[in-house]
Amino acid sequence: MFFKRYHGQIRLLFLLLFIPISSPSLAKNNVPLPSWAEGESRQSLIDFVQAVTTEGKDFVPVAQRIATFDNDGTLWAEQPIYFPLLFVFNVIQEQAAQHPEWNTTEPYQSILAGDYKKVLAGGHEALFALLIKTSTGMNQKTFRKQVTHWIENYRHPTTHRKLTNMAYQPMLELLDYLRANQFKVYIVSGGPVDLMRPWTQSVYGIPSEQVIGSRMQKQFKFEDGKTSIERLPKFEFNNDKDGKPVSIDAFIGKRPIAAFGNSDGDLAMLQYTMAGEGRRFAMFIHHTDAQREWAYDRESHIGKLDKGLDAAKKNGWTVVDMKKDWLQVFPKP
Amino acid sequence: MFFKRYHGQIRLLFLLLFIPISSPSLAKNNVPLPSWAEGESRQSLIDFVQAVTTEGKDFVPVAQRIATFDNDGTLWAEQPIYFPLLFVFNVIQEQAAQHPEWNTTEPYQSILAGDYKKVLAGGHEALFALLIKTSTGMNQKTFRKQVTHWIENYRHPTTHRKLTNMAYQPMLELLDYLRANQFKVYIVSGGPVDLMRPWTQSVYGIPSEQVIGSRMQKQFKFEDGKTSIERLPKFEFNNDKDGKPVSIDAFIGKRPIAAFGNSDGDLAMLQYTMAGEGRRFAMFIHHTDAQREWAYDRESHIGKLDKGLDAAKKNGWTVVDMKKDWLQVFPKP
Repeated sequence: MFFKRYHGQIRLLFLLLFIPISSPSLAKNNVPLPSWAEGESRQSLIDFVQAVTTEGKDFVPVAQRIATFDNDGTLWAEQPIYFPLLFVFNVIQEQAAQHPEWNTTEPYQSILAGDYKKVLAGGHEALFALLIKTSTGMNQKTFRKQVTHWIENYRHPTTHRKLTNMAYQPMLELLDYLRANQFKVYIVSGGPVDLMRPWTQSVYGIPSEQVIGSRMQKQFKFEDGKTSIERLPKFEFNNDKDGKPVSIDAFIGKRPIAAFGNSDGDLAMLQYTMAGEGRRFAMFIHHTDAQREWAYDRESHIGKLDKGLDAAKKNGWTVVDMKKDWLQVFPKP
Repeated sequence: MFFKRYHGQIRLLFLLLFIPISSPSLAKNNVPLPSWAEGESRQSLIDFVQAVTTEGKDFVPVAQRIATFDNDGTLWAEQPIYFPLLFVFNVIQEQAAQHPEWNTTEPYQSILAGDYKKVLAGGHEALFALLIKTSTGMNQKTFRKQVTHWIENYRHPTTHRKLTNMAYQPMLELLDYLRANQFKVYIVSGGPVDLMRPWTQSVYGIPSEQVIGSRMQKQFKFEDGKTSIERLPKFEFNNDKDGKPVSIDAFIGKRPIAAFGNSDGDLAMLQYTMAGEGRRFAMFIHHTDAQREWAYDRESHIGKLDKGLDAAKKNGWTVVDMKKDWLQVFPKP
């Protein structure tokens, strides 16, 4: 039993024997979280991880080491707008040549003019309708290809980086640090799950089965021995606010012991995480760096952050001051 | 990076050094699938696993080694009725003293008389209503405790075993065999997910996040710093038939390379699995052993199996003849 169960690990052991232990990359990486400044935020992470992985009163078995991360504004930048809308707008812009009427019809007119704020002012219902228009009516395979093509070729509207280079270097290190300590890390995002899964493995090292997001309704189709999962033009679940703990229960069935967010949309997830028994950790990313990223809190054109920020301070959760706590924001391009 | 990532494995290596390699349990367990008779079924499993784990044209990377299992009738017995109904009937029976009117009202009258067939004849809608009545209106924590108490104390109506001793020994060995070959194994069942998760880890070694089933609607509640997930009296998703591949896509986001079932409810999952590219495996459990288990196919009071069985034979999927292929059916009590 034991031998069979650890078969893979034994194979790994032989691999490990061939790695020179004096490798400089090992030395460098023995220090966790190198892009985090010395200080309370970094220390609170290390204290927590050491507490739950060391035999003693705070020890947490591996199976319960679940950590959940919001995506937009927590793992990567969400300005000037959430990435799902960058996708939506890009699709609209690419199809505009076949739709001359869009030049004089809202919200298309504003999208084509790149006026994000005006489009956002139309409210959530209008945005959901645009998302349905641009991301349903095809099957999963086709849509995945489209998202993959987009993420590989699209450039961020203001930084002109690839979007995958807008992930936060300190958070990438944090994901690695948690995994090295046998945490299972999940994304729990309001963003549509199928807009994330095609690239989360390569960017974050997070496999599709650990990505939870908003969902469209789907239908199974079987024809001439071929199968497909069709994307229906209807929202199934909006994975934001109270939806986050509900999805965590539905997908994982365990309460996380650590959660990471940056807005009111993440508050319920952080509350749910912190209300469990034993040692726990909540982190709220505060966007304070207008120079290297964006500075915004409480009220922003992309959403509210005041309740989350207030709750974080009131409850003594770790609040990251991006400007002070992060030595580097984005990875080297 | 590499060192940190395999930190856990390195720790394991030191543990492994202390295991005597001549241990008799190792010798015994080096032979996979000991409760499977020599023959086509066992050999097809071994051939498949060797093909996808050996460098070559059929090799499948670890991240894609997803195997999905139906539960009732595939991993454990489903006669005389599916276990969710055993749970429902047990709750009704326990509450009967407070409801004298049930003695003369259907379907309660038949439930109290233990007449499963008559209750089943009432159709799916009536059963769903009973499930809602007995498993909603409380929060997840309370319900989990109730299920845990039930599974530990309930005895099967005809064998008088604990239900967890009605798991199939050959399938337990198969789960171990796949895990030893770095497969990630999932349950994808029509049964309600929250009736399974409290015991799948201890019985099958399958953690809650790898159990997909039918789902009730839930709601997040936050009050006085306390949180709960409330179970609402409404079905959210019926994870049967075409629902299985849809859920696999929603939860896992990858097409399985192996799938295991025993009824028409599993056919879509097996079709979806087999329609992908590369080497794949589908197994259909045929209940042929009236002596040690139950013998039924095509039509049974608990559901239909004819389409699945016909498709399995037509497509050359592995059909397990329980009587012939399994040396032992249930674990030693």
